[in-house]
Amino acid sequence: MSGGLFISFEGGEGVGKSTQVRRLAARLQAAGHEVVVTREPGGSPGAEAIRNLVLNGSADRWSPVTETLLMYASRRDHIERTLRPALARGAMVLCDRYADSTRAYQGAAGGADPGLISALEAFILEEVRPVRTLVFDLDPELGLARALGRPDAEARFESKGLDFHRRLREGFLAIARAEPGRCRIVDASGDPDAVEARVLTGLDGLFPRLGAAG
Amino acid sequence: MSGGLFISFEGGEGVGKSTQVRRLAARLQAAGHEVVVTREPGGSPGAEAIRNLVLNGSADRWSPVTETLLMYASRRDHIERTLRPALARGAMVLCDRYADSTRAYQGAAGGADPGLISALEAFILEEVRPVRTLVFDLDPELGLARALGRPDAEARFESKGLDFHRRLREGFLAIARAEPGRCRIVDASGDPDAVEARVLTGLDGLFPRLGAAG
Repeated sequence: MSGGLFISFEGGEGVGKSTQVRRLAARLQAAGHEVVVTREPGGSPGAEAIRNLVLNGSADRWSPVTETLLMYASRRDHIERTLRPALARGAMVLCDRYADSTRAYQGAAGGADPGLISALEAFILEEVRPVRTLVFDLDPELGLARALGRPDAEARFESKGLDFHRRLREGFLAIARAEPGRCRIVDASGDPDAVEARVLTGLDGLFPRLGAAG
Repeated sequence: MSGGLFISFEGGEGVGKSTQVRRLAARLQAAGHEVVVTREPGGSPGAEAIRNLVLNGSADRWSPVTETLLMYASRRDHIERTLRPALARGAMVLCDRYADSTRAYQGAAGGADPGLISALEAFILEEVRPVRTLVFDLDPELGLARALGRPDAEARFESKGLDFHRRLREGFLAIARAEPGRCRIVDASGDPDAVEARVLTGLDGLFPRLGAAG
């Protein structure tokens, strides 16, 4: 991975990732970096078309295994058309969800075979892996209440029950605990300013001059 | 696989598979079998939605690796919603394209990693594998001329060059040679009656009372 820096933002529904992605992007741009803000599923025209398939419709429209394959199809397109070119030219890439979301949503919460997911990670991601992952953690009852208050047609995952979202939270926390070098758990409770301070703490070592003082 | 019988029809563009699927279906129905005629990509509502994504647009809309993942997403949905239920209730399932098309189109002709394709076969197909595969073989110049004469909006693969279609033919023949127990090569040249006779020969051992005499 030459030049660029890849940071992923992970967590369940309504944890406030998108707000923090925008805030960090503004801060990095002000510091003179080229910043690419992107998201999954999506982030390239083909991947956005797949996003429309996977995030809409009834909760049981796709099985967790089929979802896993759709997510990896969109991810591969995103890698080839957006992520790899951006990182090659040295951009700071901030991605709202990446491979950990498949492990947590389709794997831990959905029940798809972790062996399938690991095989896909090995074949599909290649070198395009985040150097830092911020795992936003919030009580799923709070997160769902926030998410359901948004105008948002893409509610397929939100419509899965609270048990699903509890397994999802545990899935994300398990990933963060298993990879402490890459992952930081960010307490997503409280107001956006408080969360932003925790995000900056979670970027320890990456931007020496950014810090909490901006 | 209890009860049912799964037969796949494979080959390049314009080889006449669909015509022969219909003819065999009529013959099996006349002999009293429940017959399910289906196709890939597609064969279930979700898989047909993925078909629309993968068969339309410019030739380079998706890379061969992304295509492989989209094909397996549609295949998994087709397996879960159509193939497995049909086979469980004892139907004869005739499928126009199946897993060998991914090996040939995305793998042999497109250049996707055969290791990825083998891993997906192992994780996704499970027990849903054809007992017999008829590989329709035809000079790709003839097949493309036939295919391009059809009213058909799904021309993404037809629009790839002749070199692609030559590698495709070799890919299918290599599969058939590697698995002679499952596969039969059907010479797809000549009129539909002549091809139908070869199809029936290719079903040796499966329908003792069907035979060439109907």
